Amino acid sequence: MKDCRRRFSIGQGQHPAAGLVVFAATCVAATAIAVEGGNDAELLQEARRHFPPLPKDATTAEFPTTPERIRLGRMLFFDPRISADGTASCVRCHLPGLYATDGLPRSVGALGRVLPRNAPTVFYSALHATQHWDGEFATVEDQAKHGLVGMGLANRDYASAMARLKAIPGYRAVFRQAFPGEADPINEVNWSKAIGAFERTLVTPSRFDDYLAGKPDALSEAEREGLRTFVETGCVECHNGRGVGGGGFRKFGVFSDYREATGSRNSDKGRFALTKNPDDVDSFKVPGLRDVAMTPPYFHDGSVADLPKAVAIMAKIQLDADLSEAQVASIVVFLKSLTGPLPEGFERAPILPVGGFATTPPDPRR
Amino acid sequence: MKDCRRRFSIGQGQHPAAGLVVFAATCVAATAIAVEGGNDAELLQEARRHFPPLPKDATTAEFPTTPERIRLGRMLFFDPRISADGTASCVRCHLPGLYATDGLPRSVGALGRVLPRNAPTVFYSALHATQHWDGEFATVEDQAKHGLVGMGLANRDYASAMARLKAIPGYRAVFRQAFPGEADPINEVNWSKAIGAFERTLVTPSRFDDYLAGKPDALSEAEREGLRTFVETGCVECHNGRGVGGGGFRKFGVFSDYREATGSRNSDKGRFALTKNPDDVDSFKVPGLRDVAMTPPYFHDGSVADLPKAVAIMAKIQLDADLSEAQVASIVVFLKSLTGPLPEGFERAPILPVGGFATTPPDPRR
Repeated sequence: MKDCRRRFSIGQGQHPAAGLVVFAATCVAATAIAVEGGNDAELLQEARRHFPPLPKDATTAEFPTTPERIRLGRMLFFDPRISADGTASCVRCHLPGLYATDGLPRSVGALGRVLPRNAPTVFYSALHATQHWDGEFATVEDQAKHGLVGMGLANRDYASAMARLKAIPGYRAVFRQAFPGEADPINEVNWSKAIGAFERTLVTPSRFDDYLAGKPDALSEAEREGLRTFVETGCVECHNGRGVGGGGFRKFGVFSDYREATGSRNSDKGRFALTKNPDDVDSFKVPGLRDVAMTPPYFHDGSVADLPKAVAIMAKIQLDADLSEAQVASIVVFLKSLTGPLPEGFERAPILPVGGFATTPPDPRR
Repeated sequence: MKDCRRRFSIGQGQHPAAGLVVFAATCVAATAIAVEGGNDAELLQEARRHFPPLPKDATTAEFPTTPERIRLGRMLFFDPRISADGTASCVRCHLPGLYATDGLPRSVGALGRVLPRNAPTVFYSALHATQHWDGEFATVEDQAKHGLVGMGLANRDYASAMARLKAIPGYRAVFRQAFPGEADPINEVNWSKAIGAFERTLVTPSRFDDYLAGKPDALSEAEREGLRTFVETGCVECHNGRGVGGGGFRKFGVFSDYREATGSRNSDKGRFALTKNPDDVDSFKVPGLRDVAMTPPYFHDGSVADLPKAVAIMAKIQLDADLSEAQVASIVVFLKSLTGPLPEGFERAPILPVGGFATTPPDPRR
């Protein structure tokens, strides 16, 4: 690792744009930064190259975050009556109190179905290049739409999912306001556009963003030192961009099999299952690290609950770096500075229109 | 019914104290109020006899609502990691957005188990004489404790439930603060005391309380007229007290079998299953009607989703009263005035300590 470490020290040199690019999957391929050390001003300058400023939200021309769509999406995000058994909303796996995760290694959807992978936070996910650990979906809207009939909400089909919503009289007006002029606005596309509009607002700016905005003292000396370690160790080569990750894919276990390091007992080959490309075996999306201290357990299978352990494993198997305890602790101190306050509209539950579900859903055990 | 109706008109006459008394189960037994009609001042006077003012919360010497217990209880109320499959907290059946109900005829607990009855709101439940539709538990603390190993959270036993909590490091300090001086404060009794302390704060004062406090204009003329109808029809004979119900038990279906009226296809005999007393066949707790417009579906089996229909059925089978559509609508207008804003600490999700659940819970289908 020592060679690799030297390549990532701070001071000067080109750095790949922190955009949504699929980087090559090894330490060796990452662009080198040649000079060790560097003072606080250089650190800030370097950090700004890796982490562009946050947008207010992730609105786009195609997916506008109008107040009406956000309002509707917020309701829908919290409403379990959309699921096959009436118990699972988006909040099932993305709880406000756990920073939009569920604390489980792998999530459990409607009808008690155990999902194949760990639920990542939805915070900043709209700023990621793709959704899901294997990048199956391009946008949060795609992901949300699929969730209706996937294992999360477990509806038989879109029609039956929409029938659940249509049985709740109060939604009619809210959909109409969010999608004016449409004859039949309650449909799965609009459901996903509304959920997406809400999710596109879910960012949690932290002191790190104040730092990037040019206030070095927004981070403590220990946090700045942690940032330096994060950069110099090479973590930043993948975990960069506005999401501090979320920009591409990497083989999980560049220098050794992840199953050995994490103790995972699973056969999950990641993106390979989707692409059938042998290069994609064990390839997973680089997760965003914002709010990471609040979102254990870690990795696609939630196999590691402890953040320092997760950092040490990543350094070892991705970068061949044997970090000291002090280096790991320093990186963790920095990572904790990426936690921001919960978005108001997420922490606070919306009041939902009443009605729906004329009959008790089936017991999945029968 | 007409005879019965006359017995409940407003104006004068004695009325049973609105305390937590188990009333006799028929219209005939209710104390008569002899004079029809009555002006607004008389209506307010009458209302105050039925509905004593709300306490700030339901703290007692035995169950003090200290800020530390409320803080802990609020966390625990929202934390699904206490359940057998990590998906069910108290919020599973008592969602903030649905006024502490789940919108289902019968609730679905951890492991996908369908519960025998409809989930009532927890708002005001600490002011009720008993908990659950059959009065199985005396206090909200009793109910919460049982919930740990009942169908809601589905833990094998208290020890395994507490092991889940103890695996979350951040809870240690919060329990210690809530129960100072105890050697091992993380136990099921303290869990239930903390949940109870939080629940004892969950009241939603509405314009109706302003009215009772002596501001007649806090209710519209239509709402006051609805209150008059509510009293004169005889609804108030059971739905009285601070919870507008919650004070005792009644046979559901005094004048005819509830299953005929509601279309229920169940064999639920209510309190009889608990007491084996033949007088208790089909006897259920009188539900509190506060926030009732926000908590469909109605009755112990959630068999009726529509509030006007529920009102008409209740009048018919409890009081032998054939209400006109206008009378039903009038009562519904009054009932809607019983909806207050959500309690701040309930609407807003608490941030939970991270950790716990080292392994993925089992899939209940396997």
